[in-house]
Amino acid sequence: MLKSALHPSFRSVLAARRAAGSAVRVAGAHDALGGRLAEAAGFDAVWASSLEVSAARCLPDASVLTMTEYLEAAANTQKALGIPVVADVDTGYGNNLNVAHMVREYEAAGITAVAIEDKQFPKMNSFVATSHTLLDTDTFASKLRVAKQAQRTEDFFVIARTEALIDGLGVEVALERCHAYVDAGADGVLVHSKKPTNEQVLAFLAEWQDRAPVVVVPTTYPDWHIDDAVKAGVSTVIYANQGLRATIRALRETFSTIVDQGATTELEDRIASVKDIFALQGLAEWQELESA
Amino acid sequence: MLKSALHPSFRSVLAARRAAGSAVRVAGAHDALGGRLAEAAGFDAVWASSLEVSAARCLPDASVLTMTEYLEAAANTQKALGIPVVADVDTGYGNNLNVAHMVREYEAAGITAVAIEDKQFPKMNSFVATSHTLLDTDTFASKLRVAKQAQRTEDFFVIARTEALIDGLGVEVALERCHAYVDAGADGVLVHSKKPTNEQVLAFLAEWQDRAPVVVVPTTYPDWHIDDAVKAGVSTVIYANQGLRATIRALRETFSTIVDQGATTELEDRIASVKDIFALQGLAEWQELESA
Amino acid sequence: MLKSALHPSFRSVLAARRAAGSAVRVAGAHDALGGRLAEAAGFDAVWASSLEVSAARCLPDASVLTMTEYLEAAANTQKALGIPVVADVDTGYGNNLNVAHMVREYEAAGITAVAIEDKQFPKMNSFVATSHTLLDTDTFASKLRVAKQAQRTEDFFVIARTEALIDGLGVEVALERCHAYVDAGADGVLVHSKKPTNEQVLAFLAEWQDRAPVVVVPTTYPDWHIDDAVKAGVSTVIYANQGLRATIRALRETFSTIVDQGATTELEDRIASVKDIFALQGLAEWQELESA
Amino acid sequence: MLKSALHPSFRSVLAARRAAGSAVRVAGAHDALGGRLAEAAGFDAVWASSLEVSAARCLPDASVLTMTEYLEAAANTQKALGIPVVADVDTGYGNNLNVAHMVREYEAAGITAVAIEDKQFPKMNSFVATSHTLLDTDTFASKLRVAKQAQRTEDFFVIARTEALIDGLGVEVALERCHAYVDAGADGVLVHSKKPTNEQVLAFLAEWQDRAPVVVVPTTYPDWHIDDAVKAGVSTVIYANQGLRATIRALRETFSTIVDQGATTELEDRIASVKDIFALQGLAEWQELESA
Repeated sequence: MLKSALHPSFRSVLAARRAAGSAVRVAGAHDALGGRLAEAAGFDAVWASSLEVSAARCLPDASVLTMTEYLEAAANTQKALGIPVVADVDTGYGNNLNVAHMVREYEAAGITAVAIEDKQFPKMNSFVATSHTLLDTDTFASKLRVAKQAQRTEDFFVIARTEALIDGLGVEVALERCHAYVDAGADGVLVHSKKPTNEQVLAFLAEWQDRAPVVVVPTTYPDWHIDDAVKAGVSTVIYANQGLRATIRALRETFSTIVDQGATTELEDRIASVKDIFALQGLAEWQELESA
Repeated sequence: MLKSALHPSFRSVLAARRAAGSAVRVAGAHDALGGRLAEAAGFDAVWASSLEVSAARCLPDASVLTMTEYLEAAANTQKALGIPVVADVDTGYGNNLNVAHMVREYEAAGITAVAIEDKQFPKMNSFVATSHTLLDTDTFASKLRVAKQAQRTEDFFVIARTEALIDGLGVEVALERCHAYVDAGADGVLVHSKKPTNEQVLAFLAEWQDRAPVVVVPTTYPDWHIDDAVKAGVSTVIYANQGLRATIRALRETFSTIVDQGATTELEDRIASVKDIFALQGLAEWQELESA
Repeated sequence: MLKSALHPSFRSVLAARRAAGSAVRVAGAHDALGGRLAEAAGFDAVWASSLEVSAARCLPDASVLTMTEYLEAAANTQKALGIPVVADVDTGYGNNLNVAHMVREYEAAGITAVAIEDKQFPKMNSFVATSHTLLDTDTFASKLRVAKQAQRTEDFFVIARTEALIDGLGVEVALERCHAYVDAGADGVLVHSKKPTNEQVLAFLAEWQDRAPVVVVPTTYPDWHIDDAVKAGVSTVIYANQGLRATIRALRETFSTIVDQGATTELEDRIASVKDIFALQGLAEWQELESA
Repeated sequence: MLKSALHPSFRSVLAARRAAGSAVRVAGAHDALGGRLAEAAGFDAVWASSLEVSAARCLPDASVLTMTEYLEAAANTQKALGIPVVADVDTGYGNNLNVAHMVREYEAAGITAVAIEDKQFPKMNSFVATSHTLLDTDTFASKLRVAKQAQRTEDFFVIARTEALIDGLGVEVALERCHAYVDAGADGVLVHSKKPTNEQVLAFLAEWQDRAPVVVVPTTYPDWHIDDAVKAGVSTVIYANQGLRATIRALRETFSTIVDQGATTELEDRIASVKDIFALQGLAEWQELESA
């Protein structure tokens, strides 16, 4: 097994956080800028969210964009960061062959962790009120075995995401599936629920007893404090789309203000400066190269 | 000459605005989401800004990203919009051959307007305090001739951007250059100044007398009302980077809030909803296709 | 409906050939060079073959590469040619939503014809001895309706490819399906067979009676003369992979010769010259731009 | 310094070949298929040639394609191979900043060696009869220093290519420049000559005395046997474009045969089989994944 190269791996960050009794905090992003601002704010990792990447293209989060496009977003984000990217790879983009290809391509691009979900391809975003049919357990376990076989760097981390709760199947099914997924080689599990409270996830955690690291995405239960999540057995919390949602609000207000006022004077105090952009671009370091 | 196809052209939008005695309002963006929000706010066109696209990658606006990457951003934005994209193509990415290739590639991707500037390749962002050496006038005029020869759709619009004022050369030089550029075939001119007031641009406009449409970028003179700009002879105003700057501010605050509070409850009222994302993705229309 | 722009459409070439009582000759290619050599040899169109594009990447023709990658190959080929590209789009890359997105992306990139097949995603190359399960007829007909609704240029041409014969279902099923596909809006049909003779295809044609243009791919019945195919009712013949197969043979021999001989003297008379490469690149025309 | 990951590095292959008293044989290619056939024939490495990659797009080898496109070709080739790719990176695509960015992008994509040349950007292919103006020595040495500083994997190998002989400047200038380049950190040098004999290169080698590994490209002196090159002090021989030239010849003949004969029967014995394509795609291994 080869060592993965240029970036700290999600596996190592997770190990450090677990050793410290805390959780990995992950922020959703769709580009390097979002990732860098998350890193600056103190996040431990970045979630290359398929919802965010799709939204940046004004296309639905429904397997319409391709692996190439999701990977490009994830890789471009990773290249700008000192923290790992966890790539949302949806269903793995098809069958076992697609999963193997996905693992090789993501590894080759420097990604150290992916989350694959047990829905059928093409998937629909989990928050959409529609049916979310799952693959049968064995078929998805086979995908996980393939993913782990395809892996060539020792650190590569495969998160199995069950959509059992999203599909209305209940906590017992989620547990059964996650056990099967860990048996198949998954390095961690992501239990997704869109209930207005964290009750389903808490029920899962109570039975799971930390068999493998658990990832949660508290979009619809925003009041779950990370310290409480850690106490309940969570190892990683993904704040998946708040950045995108803040961006939409900010752009909407900014563009309306310009149209309404016919000038941008009033905005100046409310937005970052051009120098601030330069700093985020690392301009000073780049300029030093001019006279190397 | 062929008709350009799938999108309204910048040329047609400009003609309509001039006929109405107003100016084309253009918002800077680096992705389709920004473009769509600009369109929704009432903008007439979108500026595929090299500063914004570079910043989204956390790389300097210094000809480091390639034409392929800038074009991808511009084309992905255009595909989501009913208003035209004006592509910031920096210096044209090299010499005459690069300019010809650029025009063909941008046209093939559905872009109907580009702005080429008279700096040398590789360029540095105009707001950076460094030297901004210009090409000599004849060499740049040759680029413009090549651009117009390479064009295959009748609507394609080439804006010649002079950086004479950025390079400290004064209004007379800017005027001379712009006349030479229009002689060479440019469809419009962009006069860029980074003075804290619009005085240089006003001096230019007073002498120019609407020989060809004039584009301005009032980043450093934010108090110039668009109605006053129209009266002074401006046909197009680009608000080039306010959206990016608002995004940075919003992401910074949002990510800090999550880290500080350990939960996202407080954010919920300050950010767009997930349903709002779905609407921007056009989800309902896409879902109708499921049962076509 | 908008006019498609920069390239002659497959629809217009097909109409001209049918008016002349002949067929459209199409050569498989995986890049612009192959396309340009096909055009130079007298072909009427180029088949952007998924087998060729996959093989150029040393990956199986099994929906492993993404739409992005197949489209890039097709679009880069089309941009170099004065004849139309017919894009092999496999199954349309998923469900109805993927098909709609595919049509919009291919049109936006200047492609004027696509062939969609009625296998399930992910598909396997038709010549592989494995099962090739078809979508049910209604589901595929729905895809075709979506494709035609999504189309925005009047010339865009959708070929419905049935794999009924590849799946061992017989000529009657192929006919039923093709009628349903034309009812759903398909502009033409492709009947694929891998029998060692053209008997199945002839049986199809005898019953079909030119209800819509028929495309054939005589890979396994190489002795079928195009004039005989025309008499039998064929409107388009795709020579899908002979170029690739010749390339493999040529590269294998060339590379072995170099390794064996330790020099390339002997090759010089058997390979194109460097000047020949320059001519295919259109170098002289590009150089003229230097002094425009 | 980090270890580079997934592929054997050019540095290690070069060391092994030098230890064995032989040279690294490198074949030019523009895609993975060419690379894999070169590897199968016994080549030690593959040259991701800008001439070949440009020709595959029917565009001149004149810095018209972008780094993104050259890198994509190189990376897609590398991913399919067990031997290293040496990437032809032309001038480094601009100034020092572009060179630093290039090194980071190529490393991130798994490339272990690049060759940068001392011509000005945009360059023209060396075999074109036109002026080939060089950067001054210090400016190019600065690029090399930047490249070596930007490197993050210990194995990354930077070849400094001098075009002094192409520019008519003589062997003494080539030697001076190459000494300066090695002083600046270059790991090896490439001495390019387009004389009809190897006399210039021999004169260079006689004076150079193996200060650093020397790479040659015997396109115009095809009779130089590799064993003689080794004796003269060469460590790496690039057969840069014979594969492309053989491909052109093969495609031209194949396509003409089809058009002339109206059938492909006669070709069947002269071209690879479809099964042969499948083997190059590794199909059997991929199919095993179906039942993992």
